[in-house]
Order: sequence, then C-alpha cells, then structure tokens
Amino acid sequence: MNRNLIANVVVGENNKIQGFVENLRNKRAMAFLVIRDHTGRIQVTIEKEKHPELAAIVDQLTVESVVTCVGPIVENSYVKLGGKEMLPEEMEILSIAEPLPISKDAAIDSRLDYRWVDLRSDRNTLIFKAQTELVAAMRGYLLDKGFMEIHTPKLIGAASESGSDVFELKYFDRKAYLSQSPQFYKQMAMASGFDRIFEVGPVFRAEKSFTNKHATEFTGFDLEMSYITSFRDVMDIEAELLQAALKNVKEKYGEQIKELFGLEVIVPALPFPEMKLADVYKELEERYGYTCPEEEKNDLTTEAEHLCAKLSMDKFGHEFLFVTDYGPEKRAFYHMRDENGMPLGYDLIWRGTEITTGAQREHRYERLRAQADEKGLGEDVKFYMDFFRYGCPPHGGFGLGVDRLTMLLLGIPIKEVMFLFRGPNRVSP
Amino acid sequence: MNRNLIANVVVGENNKIQGFVENLRNKRAMAFLVIRDHTGRIQVTIEKEKHPELAAIVDQLTVESVVTCVGPIVENSYVKLGGKEMLPEEMEILSIAEPLPISKDAAIDSRLDYRWVDLRSDRNTLIFKAQTELVAAMRGYLLDKGFMEIHTPKLIGAASESGSDVFELKYFDRKAYLSQSPQFYKQMAMASGFDRIFEVGPVFRAEKSFTNKHATEFTGFDLEMSYITSFRDVMDIEAELLQAALKNVKEKYGEQIKELFGLEVIVPALPFPEMKLADVYKELEERYGYTCPEEEKNDLTTEAEHLCAKLSMDKFGHEFLFVTDYGPEKRAFYHMRDENGMPLGYDLIWRGTEITTGAQREHRYERLRAQADEKGLGEDVKFYMDFFRYGCPPHGGFGLGVDRLTMLLLGIPIKEVMFLFRGPNRVSP
Repeated sequence: MNRNLIANVVVGENNKIQGFVENLRNKRAMAFLVIRDHTGRIQVTIEKEKHPELAAIVDQLTVESVVTCVGPIVENSYVKLGGKEMLPEEMEILSIAEPLPISKDAAIDSRLDYRWVDLRSDRNTLIFKAQTELVAAMRGYLLDKGFMEIHTPKLIGAASESGSDVFELKYFDRKAYLSQSPQFYKQMAMASGFDRIFEVGPVFRAEKSFTNKHATEFTGFDLEMSYITSFRDVMDIEAELLQAALKNVKEKYGEQIKELFGLEVIVPALPFPEMKLADVYKELEERYGYTCPEEEKNDLTTEAEHLCAKLSMDKFGHEFLFVTDYGPEKRAFYHMRDENGMPLGYDLIWRGTEITTGAQREHRYERLRAQADEKGLGEDVKFYMDFFRYGCPPHGGFGLGVDRLTMLLLGIPIKEVMFLFRGPNRVSP
Repeated sequence: MNRNLIANVVVGENNKIQGFVENLRNKRAMAFLVIRDHTGRIQVTIEKEKHPELAAIVDQLTVESVVTCVGPIVENSYVKLGGKEMLPEEMEILSIAEPLPISKDAAIDSRLDYRWVDLRSDRNTLIFKAQTELVAAMRGYLLDKGFMEIHTPKLIGAASESGSDVFELKYFDRKAYLSQSPQFYKQMAMASGFDRIFEVGPVFRAEKSFTNKHATEFTGFDLEMSYITSFRDVMDIEAELLQAALKNVKEKYGEQIKELFGLEVIVPALPFPEMKLADVYKELEERYGYTCPEEEKNDLTTEAEHLCAKLSMDKFGHEFLFVTDYGPEKRAFYHMRDENGMPLGYDLIWRGTEITTGAQREHRYERLRAQADEKGLGEDVKFYMDFFRYGCPPHGGFGLGVDRLTMLLLGIPIKEVMFLFRGPNRVSP
C-alpha cells in the first residue's frame, strides 16, 4: 500500500500515513495522536478495547516518535484538526524518540545545537520550501534565457581579492584557500566565450562578524554576462530575475509566509528605482535628518542602508533601491570606471539591507592592471589578470546571497534562516 | 541596436554580431574574418578600398581578439561557412588578444594552465551546455516530485566518515574540515522531517589519486528520501531520474555529442538491470574468463567494474547495471543491513565506471551505534549519531558525481570535463 501524504488523505477510504507523533494523549479507554508530516497534521484515534494490539503500541510511544498508521479516514465534526480523523487498524513504530533536548522557545544557540529538532515546525520548514522555490525560479529564468550553469572550484591556489578574510588550508605539500566568491572564475568563463553563465554554490568568508546578517559560509547566486553595453544591462536582468522569483514565491507560498512570518510577499514593479549615492545622502538628510560623517560619504553606512528601506518606500513606493556612483576607493579593482573615475556599478538594497553588488567589469588588460596596482594587489591576482590577455568580451554581473535574500523575504536573522548556520563560534553540528 | 547571435542572423538585414576573431586573412584588397560566438561562426568580408576606416581597424586585429561588427548579411555561395557573409559598415575592437600561449593540440596540462583559452572550442563548450541540461533535468524531475533543495555546510567541525582523506583548515582559533559528502547532513534533513531533499554542491576529497576519474574537488548531486520500504525505492528513483536527464540531453544535444565526441546518447530503458556481486563475478568468469582474487570478492575490483560495461550490454543490452550485495566490511557503517548482515544498498555502474553508491540507511539508533562501533568510529560521528535519538523516519538515498556523469556521457577523462580540474598537483588557475 502506498503512503498518503497527510494533505492528500481520502475520507471514506483506507489510507496509510507516516509521520512524527506531534501530540499524544493516552487515556484509559482512548488514545489520541496527532501525526505530522511535511504536508500537514491529522488526528489518529484509537479505541483501546477494540484494538488491544494498537493500545500496546501506543503505550510504547513517545512524543516525536515516528510511526506508520493504516486505516480509514472518517469525518468527525468534534475533531478540531480539519474535522476528520483516522481510525487505524494497523500501526507500526518506525523510530522511538528520547525526551526532546530543547523546547520550542529555547534560545537560538540551543536550538541550533539541535537544529534537526528545531527545524520540525511549519515555520522552519517553510523557510526551505520558499528558498527552494526562490532559487528554482531564478535558475529557470536564466536557463530560459540561454545561460549556462557552471561549477567553479572552491579550492584556490592564491588568496585572491583580499588576503585577510580568507580561510587557509593545507593542500598536500602546499597551502590553498577557500573561495570567497566565484568572481574571478565567472569572469574566466567570459574569457572562455561562454557568453552568459550563472552559479549557485557556497562562498566562504573568514570574517569575525557577529551581526544578524553575516555568516562564514553561505550560498551565493552569481551571474555574469558578456557584451553588455553598460552596467544597466546587469541591473535590468537582476530586477527581472527578482521579479520573476518573487512572483513564483508569492503564488506558491505567499499565504503561508503571511500567516507564519507576518510578512507580505510583494512582487516588485519594473523598473526598480535608482539613485546616486550622493543623492541618497542628500535626501536622507532632508527627509529624516540623517547626516553621514564626511569621511564615509563614498560608501553607504549601515544606518543609511537601513534608512533606504524608508526612503525607497516614501519616494518610490518600492521595496528595492539601486544605488549607484559609489567612490572608487570603496569598490573592487575589477569594476570598470567611467572617464571621471566613477565605478560603473551598483548595490541593490532590499528592505534596508544590501543584497547585491553588481558592475560592469574592466576587461581591458592595461586598465585592469593599473586598477589592481592602485589597490596594491600583486602576485595574488596575477593568475586572474592573465584571463584578459588573450581576448575577452566586455561583461558584467552580480552576486546575490541566497540566505540573505531568504532572510529578508521572511524577516528573520541569518542564524535562523540557514539550514546549518556557520559563524566564528559555530561549526557544528 | 541589439546584438544578433550568430546562429540567428537575418539575411538581407543589418545585423550586429559580437565575438572572437577565430580566423583572420588580411589581404591587399580584401580582409576575411571568421567571427565566433557561442552559437556559431560567420565570415565577415571587408572591401578595403570601399572601407578604409575598417581596413585600419583590421590592421590592428589579432587572432582571438574580440570585436563588434555591424552590417548587412548577404548570401554568397562562394563562402564555405554557411553560404553567407557579413559586409560590415561598422567595426569596433572590444579586446585585443596577445599571441596565444598554447596550441589546440597542446598536452592536457598545458591546456589546463590556460583553461580559458582551451575552452574556446565547440567541443569544450558543449561539455558545459550538456552538463547544464543534465543537471537542470535532474533538478526539474525532483522538484516536480516535491523534493526540497538544501544547501548543507561544507565547513564541518569533525572529520566525519574517514579522517584520512579530509582537508583540514584553520577556523579562527580551532580546526575545521571540508565536507567529503553531504551524507550526514542530508540525513539530518530526514530527522528534520523534510521528507525528500536534494543538493547539488562541491565535495572535497584529499586523496592522492592520479587516475582519469578522480579529482580533489567535484560537484556532487545528492538525494535523500524518507519512508522508503527498501533500497529498491532509491534505485527506482535514480533510474527514472537518469532516464529523464539523458532523454533531455539527447533531444537537445544528441546530434552534437555524436558529431564532436563520437558517442551516441542512449536513453536507458526502465527498469535498469540488476545483479548480485557474487553473480557478477560468476558471469565474468564464465563469459570472459576473469577471475577475481578471493580476498577482493566482497567489493568490485576496478577490472571487474570495467568488464561490467560488456557484461551488462551482452546480458541485458543495457548500459547501466545495478550491483547489490556487497560485503558489509566494504560498505559505510550507516548502510542498513538485513537479518543476515548483508548491506541493503547498491552501486550503479555506467559504461564500466561506478557512478553512484546508494542505500537504505540505518535509522535505528542502537543498531547504528553498533555498526559505528564495529568500524571503530568514535567521537567523530557522535554529532551524527544524535540525529537519530529524537525520532527519525526510515530513509535512503544516493550520491552521484556530476563531473563523472558528464565524463561518461562524453567519453573523456575527468581532467578534460571539469571547468577547472583540481588534483593533488593542481589548484590553479
């Protein structure tokens, strides 16, 4: 007999359900169980005198044990849970649970120690259902547009962009490093003539940050495309991609997200609004009295980033805001610059948090060399510089953090949104 | 003006093409270029007297430089390349190539040093087009069946399955390790009630292997599903998944794979044939005179693995072969065993190479503990053992190597199939 998912049980017929025992009331004459699978919950009612063999099984059961129950589903208006119950004729214990080590309202770090127990809630399961849909929609959008998917190595021979935040490892008789981003390799794909590619994979940051949005390992969604005419082509595709993804998530899980996280999924209108960094500061001052310290005006301060949520909503009625014209000293050496030295790139802010840096890249060897030298980068970027010596199309792209995106979608901290969070003090379970 | 991909140029109209200069014949009166993008090639013909400004541009060009050409496409039966050519009215150099550092027929290790130049061929680009399709089809198949996608951490606190082949790294003030497989964490998802999940991500093996099928980092495709009744449920879904994936690859790239790699893509019939290990050895001896050394009979020797290609074809007319009933000492401690101690799992052999190990897992804590103790595993698997203490459904799954699958699809060594190969002596570019 095949299993029926609890959402799909058929009243009036024999069903086989399998799941965790969420609730267990073992009375003298009757036993009432609530069985949960990833699609729902159902009451299972046992008349003990009628089924002594089942009563014996129930006596062994503990909360969160896993069982199979087979029997008819009947309607019963007294049952609060959907007005129906199973009256099992067979039961089997698949796994016995010890007393749970944490309660549902334990502190986050205790919950993370027992993450597999913590994840057993509709709320926490929804995180991964929504993220699955989000990523699948983004991939689907790009595959339809002829993007190739690549898998770049995470083991790299040189410390790449910045030596300080990189994990070092012993690689046989030498050292190697963990990739902080597929940036260099996705650009290599452009030099390979791959034209347009994306990658979904882990990125590693050896940062000792203890914020609610940083992790030492997270999932990056990276894209790179050739023959763009400006970084605006990159902004356009990112806006379309996010619109498509959020549309799918809203259709499939919008109701549940509202119910369990109290947040509306808003499908963003195109085009996304856009402001220059200097104009952002000007308006933040005029509208909300926020003054940025002079020495930080070439980058978006954390406080200004938060205020952008309000600014974008008040000024444009939009949750997203592209910010352009950052100072060159605050941007990576590989961002292309215009004739005035202004980097041709952007950050994308969603709900007050930066989710992307995107740019047109400098593909001309001599200029790239000069920009790397200016940042004091030497041997470590030599292998990367070589990508531009034998012909390379103009190109640009962006990187998104999948976990950060999910976190903002649901309004929860990064620790709670990751399947298994990794931070400076946490590398288990 | 928008770019026309070369495969989509329209005869009789103005087109804008962009690509690499694959060939360059700069004669006295005329210049002939062959421009290549990821969709094809086209001849660009310049009458120098008519277009002195274009002639000046051509004089600067080198092979593999990148250009934009705008002009009408005309039919010309003298042109070997598709019987048409572009007569450009505008040209722009986007990137100048230095003389190429390698020739097309250089040894593989030289080619890997300049992988981005090496990848500029129809043959090598097809590897990643086919792999994109393969993986997208596998994901699509599982998403349709309600699988969730997860992203498990690659940074782990304990050396897990086997301490010997694991990369160790400095993680702030302690040690951490790189995941050799998402095995433990995908099983954690089962204990979380996620029911059915998959993951596509890098796995790391610190093995000093110099074969044509091993790499220190590769892309794993992993699946795990709950409430199976036997490991045969896992075999069934794997066979269906591979059939669906190969069907899509054949439809989209079957012709090109035949042309460029000389191999037929064969959509495998269901069910895949299946043999017990002992029967494989019996038939290999009877049919081909291969005798396995007595002490190796509990596992498939490399030679026997190769011979399975012939055996499966001769006996079943099938490219795939499931082999079951391996000796318990050769299988991981977490494979469930039957009442006689026989592991309830399988290997899948395709074209003479093992591509998967799959199994039902032992989800009962006491038995799992005993099996771990038997293999002498202690503290390192303690965190994993805890996943089974608070209720866990019966479950099983398998892992596939995406690169190995692509390698067998195309009949080339692992070094040639990976975007950037990683081996004991190679961690660059």
